[in-house]
Amino acid sequence: MALPLHLHDIPIGLNVSGTRIETDSMGQIGVPADRYWGAQTQRSLEHFSIGDDRMPKEVYHAYGIVKKAAAQVNATGGRLTALKACAIIQACDEVIVGKLDAHFPLFVWQTGSGTQSNMNINEVVSNRAIQLLGGTLGSKNPVHPNDDVNMGMSSNDSFPTAMHIATLTLLDDRLLPELDALATTIERKAELWMDVVKIGRTHLEDAVPLTVGQEWSGYAHQIRETIANLKLVRTGLFELAIGGTAVGTGLNAPKGFSVDMANAIAQLTGKPYVTAPNKFAAQGTLDAMVRMSAALRGVAVALMKIANDMRWLASGPRCGFGELHLPENEPGSSIMPGKVNPTQCEALVMIAIQVIGDDTAVAFAGSQGNFELNAMRPIVINNVLHAIRILSDGCQKFHQYSVEGTELNRKRIREMVSRSVMLVTALSPDIGYDKASAIAHMAMEHDLTLRDAALKSGYIDDQTFDRLADPMTMVGHGVGGA
Amino acid sequence: MALPLHLHDIPIGLNVSGTRIETDSMGQIGVPADRYWGAQTQRSLEHFSIGDDRMPKEVYHAYGIVKKAAAQVNATGGRLTALKACAIIQACDEVIVGKLDAHFPLFVWQTGSGTQSNMNINEVVSNRAIQLLGGTLGSKNPVHPNDDVNMGMSSNDSFPTAMHIATLTLLDDRLLPELDALATTIERKAELWMDVVKIGRTHLEDAVPLTVGQEWSGYAHQIRETIANLKLVRTGLFELAIGGTAVGTGLNAPKGFSVDMANAIAQLTGKPYVTAPNKFAAQGTLDAMVRMSAALRGVAVALMKIANDMRWLASGPRCGFGELHLPENEPGSSIMPGKVNPTQCEALVMIAIQVIGDDTAVAFAGSQGNFELNAMRPIVINNVLHAIRILSDGCQKFHQYSVEGTELNRKRIREMVSRSVMLVTALSPDIGYDKASAIAHMAMEHDLTLRDAALKSGYIDDQTFDRLADPMTMVGHGVGGA
Amino acid sequence: MALPLHLHDIPIGLNVSGTRIETDSMGQIGVPADRYWGAQTQRSLEHFSIGDDRMPKEVYHAYGIVKKAAAQVNATGGRLTALKACAIIQACDEVIVGKLDAHFPLFVWQTGSGTQSNMNINEVVSNRAIQLLGGTLGSKNPVHPNDDVNMGMSSNDSFPTAMHIATLTLLDDRLLPELDALATTIERKAELWMDVVKIGRTHLEDAVPLTVGQEWSGYAHQIRETIANLKLVRTGLFELAIGGTAVGTGLNAPKGFSVDMANAIAQLTGKPYVTAPNKFAAQGTLDAMVRMSAALRGVAVALMKIANDMRWLASGPRCGFGELHLPENEPGSSIMPGKVNPTQCEALVMIAIQVIGDDTAVAFAGSQGNFELNAMRPIVINNVLHAIRILSDGCQKFHQYSVEGTELNRKRIREMVSRSVMLVTALSPDIGYDKASAIAHMAMEHDLTLRDAALKSGYIDDQTFDRLADPMTMVGHGVGGA
Amino acid sequence: MALPLHLHDIPIGLNVSGTRIETDSMGQIGVPADRYWGAQTQRSLEHFSIGDDRMPKEVYHAYGIVKKAAAQVNATGGRLTALKACAIIQACDEVIVGKLDAHFPLFVWQTGSGTQSNMNINEVVSNRAIQLLGGTLGSKNPVHPNDDVNMGMSSNDSFPTAMHIATLTLLDDRLLPELDALATTIERKAELWMDVVKIGRTHLEDAVPLTVGQEWSGYAHQIRETIANLKLVRTGLFELAIGGTAVGTGLNAPKGFSVDMANAIAQLTGKPYVTAPNKFAAQGTLDAMVRMSAALRGVAVALMKIANDMRWLASGPRCGFGELHLPENEPGSSIMPGKVNPTQCEALVMIAIQVIGDDTAVAFAGSQGNFELNAMRPIVINNVLHAIRILSDGCQKFHQYSVEGTELNRKRIREMVSRSVMLVTALSPDIGYDKASAIAHMAMEHDLTLRDAALKSGYIDDQTFDRLADPMTMVGHGVGGA
Repeated sequence: MALPLHLHDIPIGLNVSGTRIETDSMGQIGVPADRYWGAQTQRSLEHFSIGDDRMPKEVYHAYGIVKKAAAQVNATGGRLTALKACAIIQACDEVIVGKLDAHFPLFVWQTGSGTQSNMNINEVVSNRAIQLLGGTLGSKNPVHPNDDVNMGMSSNDSFPTAMHIATLTLLDDRLLPELDALATTIERKAELWMDVVKIGRTHLEDAVPLTVGQEWSGYAHQIRETIANLKLVRTGLFELAIGGTAVGTGLNAPKGFSVDMANAIAQLTGKPYVTAPNKFAAQGTLDAMVRMSAALRGVAVALMKIANDMRWLASGPRCGFGELHLPENEPGSSIMPGKVNPTQCEALVMIAIQVIGDDTAVAFAGSQGNFELNAMRPIVINNVLHAIRILSDGCQKFHQYSVEGTELNRKRIREMVSRSVMLVTALSPDIGYDKASAIAHMAMEHDLTLRDAALKSGYIDDQTFDRLADPMTMVGHGVGGA
Repeated sequence: MALPLHLHDIPIGLNVSGTRIETDSMGQIGVPADRYWGAQTQRSLEHFSIGDDRMPKEVYHAYGIVKKAAAQVNATGGRLTALKACAIIQACDEVIVGKLDAHFPLFVWQTGSGTQSNMNINEVVSNRAIQLLGGTLGSKNPVHPNDDVNMGMSSNDSFPTAMHIATLTLLDDRLLPELDALATTIERKAELWMDVVKIGRTHLEDAVPLTVGQEWSGYAHQIRETIANLKLVRTGLFELAIGGTAVGTGLNAPKGFSVDMANAIAQLTGKPYVTAPNKFAAQGTLDAMVRMSAALRGVAVALMKIANDMRWLASGPRCGFGELHLPENEPGSSIMPGKVNPTQCEALVMIAIQVIGDDTAVAFAGSQGNFELNAMRPIVINNVLHAIRILSDGCQKFHQYSVEGTELNRKRIREMVSRSVMLVTALSPDIGYDKASAIAHMAMEHDLTLRDAALKSGYIDDQTFDRLADPMTMVGHGVGGA
Repeated sequence: MALPLHLHDIPIGLNVSGTRIETDSMGQIGVPADRYWGAQTQRSLEHFSIGDDRMPKEVYHAYGIVKKAAAQVNATGGRLTALKACAIIQACDEVIVGKLDAHFPLFVWQTGSGTQSNMNINEVVSNRAIQLLGGTLGSKNPVHPNDDVNMGMSSNDSFPTAMHIATLTLLDDRLLPELDALATTIERKAELWMDVVKIGRTHLEDAVPLTVGQEWSGYAHQIRETIANLKLVRTGLFELAIGGTAVGTGLNAPKGFSVDMANAIAQLTGKPYVTAPNKFAAQGTLDAMVRMSAALRGVAVALMKIANDMRWLASGPRCGFGELHLPENEPGSSIMPGKVNPTQCEALVMIAIQVIGDDTAVAFAGSQGNFELNAMRPIVINNVLHAIRILSDGCQKFHQYSVEGTELNRKRIREMVSRSVMLVTALSPDIGYDKASAIAHMAMEHDLTLRDAALKSGYIDDQTFDRLADPMTMVGHGVGGA
Repeated sequence: MALPLHLHDIPIGLNVSGTRIETDSMGQIGVPADRYWGAQTQRSLEHFSIGDDRMPKEVYHAYGIVKKAAAQVNATGGRLTALKACAIIQACDEVIVGKLDAHFPLFVWQTGSGTQSNMNINEVVSNRAIQLLGGTLGSKNPVHPNDDVNMGMSSNDSFPTAMHIATLTLLDDRLLPELDALATTIERKAELWMDVVKIGRTHLEDAVPLTVGQEWSGYAHQIRETIANLKLVRTGLFELAIGGTAVGTGLNAPKGFSVDMANAIAQLTGKPYVTAPNKFAAQGTLDAMVRMSAALRGVAVALMKIANDMRWLASGPRCGFGELHLPENEPGSSIMPGKVNPTQCEALVMIAIQVIGDDTAVAFAGSQGNFELNAMRPIVINNVLHAIRILSDGCQKFHQYSVEGTELNRKRIREMVSRSVMLVTALSPDIGYDKASAIAHMAMEHDLTLRDAALKSGYIDDQTFDRLADPMTMVGHGVGGA
């Protein structure tokens, strides 16, 4: 068809019912007339309606960026007319902001290369562009899904490119800020409680004292370290496969396409994307994604410790450790009236376990590449985005509904310190480990306070005892140890 | 309020907008006026909107059975008036068939006991029953979510009961039939191809011949064994926790409630449910679910071998093994025209890996119980049902779109047999391993056929060779070996 | 050489130093002259000296049974002279009882079929038999490692056969008895403490009471269930691959060899071994081993709950739960004198985690079979035997050094019950959930005992309170709930 | 006792038999008289003889460095006399080089803090130092295991310090060099084969061509990336917990001990160790070790792809892909004469799977810390060192016995390229995807060469075909794609 002079101003939407005939190399097939997708999407929808897991929308939003960048690069290179490029770019802009989400129905469990999702976006963008240019949907004219929208690309280089962009977007927009906010709040509380002496515990058993602030400084430090690690691993995802096309050689892509595309994507996203130095590794493996998944698992491992500590320290209220009061957000039990449970901690622990499960799938899938393609891509991107999503939301809720409102049971904390026998440790440098040990055993056997046992032992006088076994001085200074 | 003489005939639905005030022990809260849920559901919705993972609807359907059985048992026991029981039962019937699905919005990541989902059903059933009895929604009168709908129960015994029912339902309705159907088709093909001699491969390397039917009989056998194992493990889920209430002692449940409930549920479902002999194990652990998850993983492990074999045997079409033709369901590549890929196999492999990941989460969560409760229930039921769902659908698609239409490339299969050197093995019993080995090496080094090498070696004459190295006889008989 | 009239009476041992020349199809190679192994073992030793993981000796002991059975069956079938069979059988008997352990040096990380370990035993038995018959070591005369010792067999059917035998031996001899003993002791303690009322805990939070005996009955029940599950899964290992030879067809094995071998092995071991009905599944997969590994993981998951409960309940001694006294076996700390830690529990928790890690490797390996062989056998047998070994020993130590000597801190247990607010639950059936909830909240807010709060609320009188909130009656009867 | 003027010149060894009495706070116990260890080691040996897993010797060698550094720092600080310090240092030097290995018998499955291994080294060093000073073994005089050898330290800070040192030592000495050597050899081969055109494969199916060198460049790149990642993660292990003592506060350690110890260790090892900025995170978690384990898993994932590719590309020799000749190191089969298998690849695949299993255990254990201590240390260090060890050795063997000697089957590689239909892709930019697709389908259906089908289609003339479908130009240039 002859191209119009400019794009038509047609809002998104196909105001028709019934089915439309679309075609691909397998022949004709009917698709819902009110959807932009074409034959290959429809086939996938029928052949792969498995479970409820849909390819995450973030992948399509990222793919919109890839296709937009390609239209720009191809137009600049004179391989695509300006008007076709404009139509493709407008359609991509609509994809990027989520306006066409309803047209990306495919399931996660599909071809291992993500080709069907690539064709989904090729078809949607092509048909939307055709609409904007006054053409007939399904005609592939004047904008062909493969020849125009996919120009210079293969699923094998564009899908992993979209994976990297989607992952970094969600990571940067959601997880990193939530972790930072959580760490900041914990740091604030650590500072606030830096002088509240409490009993330490190792092996779950009473140990020597530290302060609540010291303990919480450890939680904050853990989170800060996971952030640092995410940032290190994140740089691996800036390397993009695009330009490798089918097997990494760049067949059918113009010279310089790799670099031009990375530059265009960098400009569109404001992030320092570069072309992957080795396209065979970039397409034959998912190693960079496996490393990202491992970093997410690291977050899970750290959060699990923190959430577990909080729920144990809040256990009780009367028959547990009882050092913390967590906020009471909801009734805890359908049968036990007045019961309040550490539900945010439990949710976060479950999230941590799920992320570890997700990561297991990612690592396994990452190991199963063959030759020029790792065809386990949908499972990898789905699990990585899932992990980021539940970690982000989980952190946010845990932060808002549990950490923020946590208070100390100072009376209980004081009682515990005064009761513990392990302050005996402070006597060791003076009287030696063996005598100190004898005192501790005596206190336990005869149910004495440590002070009584110590004086009774004759190994130490009262003044020395009071000087050495002073919890306030035993906790030292700061967080760096001796 | 005074109870009416009979239930009002009011269809499902709340034709109001805005919010309604509901209350719980934390106080008042506004809920959407067109929803049946109450205060605790609303609180959970706000505090736990984490990711996209919602508590599976199957859990509520199963829970409907539990609540219905309880209404029956409590009415029979004179603890619940007949009319209140009727209203509860009608509401439960609506839950069971999915008519109230829109009223169960909660997320997976919530309290570890599933209490919030229990309260969700308590609230929905209570409000729906109140509506049927002409009362005021949110008034808890005449049907109280805790005192009436939850009568004699705790989340701690009812949620695991619902977990077992939901799991068995999905297993029996979906996975077991799909596995059986797949095995049956494979058995049919195995029989059809029982005499087609092909080259065997061990360590990926050419080995002695077998028939295609023998090879496929192994696949069918694998699936049959996973079915048998699922059936063994399945029996553990017939044991129900209900009757243990809060900590397993049965506090606040009437004597005999355990057995009555198991009987009622057995009658409602037609399955041989019984009361769990030890309620402390039934509530403090998820061991039976962990075992079920392991059996699902066993299915994944078996299917992965089968799907992998099929895609490797179909590899090519010209530069791979090329023994099988898989159905061509869709174009394989966005850049390589005419390419057809083993997409159903890939999807099934990814499903298998995901199930292994899901199972990792289940086992981990299963190990994290403390004292009288394993508070990792939502993650466990979500992963188990997810695994069943994607295995069932995955099997069905793999069966329909790949296995059913698989054909042999008989020409290629024949060529391979004739080319292989490993038929030399058949000479061993006659001439010994060492001479046979020398013949094989000679054939490879000088690029000879095995027959030429054998005769040239002088170790064997042509008649003996042709008698021994006959692929037809080398494959033996049947599937049981020698 | 001419065979002697009877075996020479030569003790085990090669009283020579230096090296001896052995040969295989690759040519000559020097082996240590004081070792029975031959060329292929030597090559493997040089090519695969990886880490410290050696093929477990149990595999060779089991393999001795296989080779002995084969010699019997082959002699009976007239394929092996009686004297050669006698020599082989004597050598096998020495292998079975471990007298030749020093001659099985190979590493786990070798060929995936275990062929090198099969050849190791073939070579050792052959050379030892040659010695008993007065021949020259390395001459393969009169007993050839392949033609005689391996007669009618391949690694592909004999190695999995040895795997099953080795697994069942260790399982039956070690793990099942240890689990039974542990369960028995726990049951004894549960009975002893059946009337000691304690506070229950759900979500780590105070809940309604139960008895110590009820709690421990749950632990015992968990273990009993794992035993039952092991016994179910164990039956799958009675099916033996032997008779399938190279690819499952039974090539080069005489008709009936499968059944004869299974019978012979059953007789030698006293266990009901049968021939695997489908040899292609038996050799192409490790599904039965994956199922066994899952059952071992089930043991780990159960033991982890028990060990964790014990260490938390023993936490303190003064600032934790403090309900249990675990035996003090050793000083706990190098710096804190008198500290005693729940070290047996910690060891068992670590063992449980390791078994879960081992199982991950097994399931992954189990999924990686191709065509007629799953070539991941050494890793599978090594991890399965490792898991059985550490679970067995871990149970035994935990039993002997921790469970056996565990005592109650009855004073502490009593105090906790009297302090808890959750006894309010018993009031619910009388006054309703909402009023009971108000009482509980009042008690916590004003730091009252539950009784004081209840009476102050005006919802209940003192006599009713004392009747309902009686811990002794709240715990019900037995372990089956209401 | 009075100290001598100098150390006695006594060689290592206790030339006595029978038992010697040693004591600790639990009382007396007999130890083998020819061993240096004391009471606590002996108790652990009896209470924890579980499986065959011993605490790796590398841990003790690293611990020797810690104790030596402490003796230096404590002597400098005037807390330890010079002579006692000399004796301790000499004993530590003997530990470091492995001369006292026979005196470290403890099992992995022990107390979760590693205290028993810490006491093992304290006792051995103390007794050896006593011997050097002319004292009586077991007298703790003049060198006390706790007061002198452990001066200023706890297991809780010294064991994780030793873990870091041991891990970095093995990583730097073994794994990093082996990975580098393997990558270098692969790079050399990639360069050598940079112009050998071969058929590419995606989804296991024939795709467009690339060169063997390009393919191998991807393998090398993978390994280089794993090295880079190991180096990033490695820096986290330079941070040492020492100076935190029991709970991170540094109680009983002199001011400045943290920094002094890190400096001393840095000097002894030549590596840039620093004191951990937050001791509560350093002791309450194992997060840095979990990250290291993840990086090791990354190596496994990468090596698995490479080893799998190599064994598949070498499959055959006549009925598989057959593009590579791997070196023939040993006979492959006990029954199939002349069979050669990709055994080094199989071993490496199994090693990769084991490392993934090991890592699962590490991550799980890493998540299970509580309060001031993660008491899952022995399992973590054992698995991490195991993973490094088998990866290092596995790489080395794979490199030496498989990669180094791999040759191309150039004839086969050429044939495959000429046979493939997928060269049709190169026509797409000229004739469009749809016509190119029609040509490909025609070729397959009618069993034509691509050229014949293309010309027959009429879509393209012979000159254009020959220009476009030229494998030599289709492979592009270099490894960076278009």
